[in-house]
Amino acid sequence: MYELIRTEHAARRGRFKTVHGTVETPAFMNVATAAAIKGGLSAFDLKEIKCQVMLCNTYHLHLRPGDELVRDMGGLHRFTRWDGPILTDSGGFQVFSLASLRKIREEGVTFNSHIDGRKIFMGPEESMRIQANLGSTIAMAFDECIKNPAEHGYAKDSCARTVRWLKRCKDEMARLKREGLAVNPDQLLFGINQGCCFDDLRVEQMKEIAELDLDGYSIGGLAVGEPTEEMYRVITVVEPHMPKDKIRYLMGVGTPGNILESIARGVDLFDCVMPARNARHGHFNTWGGIINIRNAKYERDESPIDPQCDCPVCRNFSRSYIRHLFKADEILGLRLGVMHNLYFYNTLLERCRDALDAGNFEGFREKYSKILDSRI
Amino acid sequence: MYELIRTEHAARRGRFKTVHGTVETPAFMNVATAAAIKGGLSAFDLKEIKCQVMLCNTYHLHLRPGDELVRDMGGLHRFTRWDGPILTDSGGFQVFSLASLRKIREEGVTFNSHIDGRKIFMGPEESMRIQANLGSTIAMAFDECIKNPAEHGYAKDSCARTVRWLKRCKDEMARLKREGLAVNPDQLLFGINQGCCFDDLRVEQMKEIAELDLDGYSIGGLAVGEPTEEMYRVITVVEPHMPKDKIRYLMGVGTPGNILESIARGVDLFDCVMPARNARHGHFNTWGGIINIRNAKYERDESPIDPQCDCPVCRNFSRSYIRHLFKADEILGLRLGVMHNLYFYNTLLERCRDALDAGNFEGFREKYSKILDSRI
Repeated sequence: MYELIRTEHAARRGRFKTVHGTVETPAFMNVATAAAIKGGLSAFDLKEIKCQVMLCNTYHLHLRPGDELVRDMGGLHRFTRWDGPILTDSGGFQVFSLASLRKIREEGVTFNSHIDGRKIFMGPEESMRIQANLGSTIAMAFDECIKNPAEHGYAKDSCARTVRWLKRCKDEMARLKREGLAVNPDQLLFGINQGCCFDDLRVEQMKEIAELDLDGYSIGGLAVGEPTEEMYRVITVVEPHMPKDKIRYLMGVGTPGNILESIARGVDLFDCVMPARNARHGHFNTWGGIINIRNAKYERDESPIDPQCDCPVCRNFSRSYIRHLFKADEILGLRLGVMHNLYFYNTLLERCRDALDAGNFEGFREKYSKILDSRI
Repeated sequence: MYELIRTEHAARRGRFKTVHGTVETPAFMNVATAAAIKGGLSAFDLKEIKCQVMLCNTYHLHLRPGDELVRDMGGLHRFTRWDGPILTDSGGFQVFSLASLRKIREEGVTFNSHIDGRKIFMGPEESMRIQANLGSTIAMAFDECIKNPAEHGYAKDSCARTVRWLKRCKDEMARLKREGLAVNPDQLLFGINQGCCFDDLRVEQMKEIAELDLDGYSIGGLAVGEPTEEMYRVITVVEPHMPKDKIRYLMGVGTPGNILESIARGVDLFDCVMPARNARHGHFNTWGGIINIRNAKYERDESPIDPQCDCPVCRNFSRSYIRHLFKADEILGLRLGVMHNLYFYNTLLERCRDALDAGNFEGFREKYSKILDSRI
């Protein structure tokens, strides 16, 4: 459970205890969509790059290899060999972003698989059953991630339905645990705040779900195309209504700068595909900004990706070598790049925690918020 | 230099000392074509899978990133961070298998790059200069790898030219060392036996190059489509004419069974892309034969790829998980597969050495020669 250790303005330094280990917050979760980190990283590699929480995608795993197979193999921990906390999303976001021919009803959503087109139904109960089979540490409630921009009327109805779905998620998880059907009998449930960029809907919905006394609360439906300032405004508007004694997770965010600004606004937990995706394109995070390793100036550069970084990649390999790997389409380039970028993110969050411990997070944020997102 | 420790019939247990470390033979060299093992393995991963020698390709590195860049970065050892022995091939094989519009003259070969089509000239001197820039432990002589089948007349002329080229290689390497132009001043030179499947040409050419007192001798031009029995016959015919006090390398071979049979015929050193390529297709070597991980019967199989294997993959991951990674096109599947297969090959050679040490290689070969190549 979440313990608030200290604050600096809205920023929070905390600790989140789970049956799979304690998460020091603020923290960044490393995305392993189909039970594997892109770029060829295994669960053991995650240990080397300071990962605290692995995130897997319910939608992808339901389609392939199937959550019942994962259950039969003992759940995600045994399947992937990652023994730390695992968060599974609800599938909602992918149903609304990847699948085609969606039909939303009160019961749930019918959609076609993006892999083979077959028709699938997923509602709150199905999402909970799948996540119970996956055996994650933290399950996310099934929600509708509304497109941005949206009509106020549609968003309002959708929010109300997401709250009803959340209650059904809570009930179904309780039943699954009661009947011994959850691979992890201590599985936690996080609710999700929605409401597009409408402050009134965001606040109203947050108040409603706060009353359900869940294990944590997320802000969803952001970083989906709205201006960054809108995102910060929504966080600032919602935050006062989020329970102080519960962990807070901003879904799918973001750049290092986004993360610093969101911590300053009271967020504890993050996830994003960006560091791994950027790495695969040769864009590497450094403490001086983002470099593109394909740039000709690195052709004979013997220095590491980031001279200030002590990750396994920077301790050993030169920009020149990694650039060559990218130019020659060698998979090793992807792997080294992803390792570096994830290590950078995990270290960034570690340094945020250190700054919060030392009471100088504001100075840290001011120094790095802009520079880390700049391309150099 | 090569030390013959003991023999069992024609099979040899030996030790090959180089400035980059000692190679216990027989040994299998792990192929890192463009200065990286396919499947995302780094030089540090090679240490984990019992690799003794890394092999890089002169042709590929000359085209990209360029051997002068590698020289400027301190040579292949510093570039890749592999500190053990490195063998570079001469580029000859690739010029004759990958490049287009070849023109062979006494001086060398003019060809078009398979990457961008640009015209390149490579002869014995160019190959030696490139390999001097790469700074490998062992350089291979520039030869013509004759297509199989070939005319006896053409093969005879080609063999004679390859001998003349070998002398030029030796002279050029001596000059490069003398003038301080070799990244590795202790670089070794291996000559290559050619002659297609013509016993008279093979023997004649072997006698000629044996007189040049090189650091090692290879048999090239085999495993290029001829029946396996032809290959074994050629090795058996050539072997008595290879210097006993020099290491012997069979280029580009082969299956585990091929390796056992070739050791029995007096070969010390092997290389092959097969274990890594097979791994990338989901075909894994085990001590009971070759399995295809995509097979449905492994869907819920919690056992490792090979229960008899103690590689980092088999110690940790299930067939079920690895099968999922292949079905989901996750790069991690390739990486784990390549790690396993290379570990298998390196361990196979280790067990051959143990058997030779114990004086029971014949029994070992009889037990495994067929079974290891069978598909199960």
